Amino acid sequence: MQDSAFFGARAVVTGGLGLIGSALARRLVAAGAAVTLIDNLAPDQGGNLFNIMDFRERVRVERHCISDTDALEPLLRDADFLFNLAARTSHLGSMREPLGDLDVNCRAQLALLELCRRVNPRINIVFASTRQIYGRPRYLPVDEAHPLRPPDVNGVSKMAGEAFHLLYHDAYGMRVSALRLTNTYGPGMRIKDAHQTFIGIWLRHAIEDRPFELWGGEQLRDFLYVDDAADAFLHAAASRETAGQAFNVGGDSVVSLRQLADLLIAANGGGRYDQKEFPAERKRIDIGDYYSDDLRFRAATGWAPKTPLAEGLMRSLDFFRAHLPHYLQGMP
Amino acid sequence: MQDSAFFGARAVVTGGLGLIGSALARRLVAAGAAVTLIDNLAPDQGGNLFNIMDFRERVRVERHCISDTDALEPLLRDADFLFNLAARTSHLGSMREPLGDLDVNCRAQLALLELCRRVNPRINIVFASTRQIYGRPRYLPVDEAHPLRPPDVNGVSKMAGEAFHLLYHDAYGMRVSALRLTNTYGPGMRIKDAHQTFIGIWLRHAIEDRPFELWGGEQLRDFLYVDDAADAFLHAAASRETAGQAFNVGGDSVVSLRQLADLLIAANGGGRYDQKEFPAERKRIDIGDYYSDDLRFRAATGWAPKTPLAEGLMRSLDFFRAHLPHYLQGMP
Repeated sequence: MQDSAFFGARAVVTGGLGLIGSALARRLVAAGAAVTLIDNLAPDQGGNLFNIMDFRERVRVERHCISDTDALEPLLRDADFLFNLAARTSHLGSMREPLGDLDVNCRAQLALLELCRRVNPRINIVFASTRQIYGRPRYLPVDEAHPLRPPDVNGVSKMAGEAFHLLYHDAYGMRVSALRLTNTYGPGMRIKDAHQTFIGIWLRHAIEDRPFELWGGEQLRDFLYVDDAADAFLHAAASRETAGQAFNVGGDSVVSLRQLADLLIAANGGGRYDQKEFPAERKRIDIGDYYSDDLRFRAATGWAPKTPLAEGLMRSLDFFRAHLPHYLQGMP
Repeated sequence: MQDSAFFGARAVVTGGLGLIGSALARRLVAAGAAVTLIDNLAPDQGGNLFNIMDFRERVRVERHCISDTDALEPLLRDADFLFNLAARTSHLGSMREPLGDLDVNCRAQLALLELCRRVNPRINIVFASTRQIYGRPRYLPVDEAHPLRPPDVNGVSKMAGEAFHLLYHDAYGMRVSALRLTNTYGPGMRIKDAHQTFIGIWLRHAIEDRPFELWGGEQLRDFLYVDDAADAFLHAAASRETAGQAFNVGGDSVVSLRQLADLLIAANGGGRYDQKEFPAERKRIDIGDYYSDDLRFRAATGWAPKTPLAEGLMRSLDFFRAHLPHYLQGMP
């Protein structure tokens, strides 16, 4: 993958102030793209203006909900690339407010695709999907042929959002691909609470020298460092082999949650956690072990993760230690 | 399956004035259930009051959109069974008005499930899904493990509607099952146009002694007679083996569309058709051959289709010959 594919290109990133969106924007700016970020900065989601403070003057920021197609139309009309990352990510939140989750993760996605088809059908779209749509794995590692059985409303909404993206390739010949990301972490993530993932709250507690909670501990997972995730989006967009397909994007290694906790404490130079029973309200939607088979994506694009988990945790801790107040604003 | 499972039970049928809903209602009434039919009688959909004329006084009919949860709440609060058949069925219509299709086939379904969870979580729900969600078959016959790749907006919306149903089993322990129906036909279907399936317009043209159009001709399909479809819903509801699962429900035999056309002409005692090239606008969303493997459903419930295709076509022709004007009302 050549970064030159993006030189002089117009790129739009929805969810552009979030964890992955902002890291992707930084890469696009460095590659010489004209970058527009769309984010509604919803207080319960991942967007944070501080995420782009090192390149704020080099991007255009538009604060809109992605359901606002009137506002999005002029931004998309001439764009070459749409990195479509805006989403609600809270699993429990989706069970509490199912229609709200559906409206953002599915209905607004369909409206956005319709808009692109109408005003700019040659746009190259990469959609941020999620391993959540597989549900509880029937075998490991999970490849793209694994059945889809989403364990929560968020998973169904995202599954349908992805399916609409692939449909617009199949039915209209549009250039669309989707990345089913595993748990992604890194500098810029939401750490106020566990809305994005539990890793955010772990990082925060480690820095604040407070114990964090480990639920269970033996569950296996793979973790994807944010810069590797951003790199995957660029690879998907630049490749001619990806259109009309959904690909797994996994982490650099597989660890148990207990190993992750121990790695975090080692990277932090100290800390502790309390092991807890898995809460009953989450048990029904827990998925047990999960890790990705992403060989199809690696073969199609040459992408591979470059950041070992221990290093990614270290970088994350360093970042949040330096900038903690910017990520705790709005705390009750 | 014993019809006695429904004696004295309160059953609600959404889409209750449509092809399958009305046939199911007739069976439920005969079995001694107290039956409420919900239908909005949308002019471009399958509902028709004439479908229940032989038992109109023995059911309660409520004209509502299924998105109107306030209206539905008192109807569902004490119901034992919900046969959830309301849907938009037009494939081309879903491409023309994608958000409208999503709102009925997915968003309203989620709202309906939330309502049931809130006011009547012990209700037994059977959802009408569709073979459309598989898309173009990768192997034949298609079983439930076949990947889902919906070929149109309708297919994605229905896939997500089904997934929400199964989720409410998985997450909340509700008793929910889904039937992925193959092409269903019979007395009471929409024959004004091809909104439901092409068979409707074929039946009408045969009766009116006009040629009908055969697009292609070699495509294989299975066809399910409406009474067998209704019987499948009763089996799914009465079985303890079906909760949390989606089952294929196929037809009694596999024929090419040309064979179907010839059977129809034989049953009609004459008629003709014009063979046409497949129209370009439909080609991208055509699925080629399809027929179902429904052995899992047969094994779980003992259901089997009882009506040979030739007989089902004959009964359909007899019905529409006797009642044609009731099915052409509102024609331009």
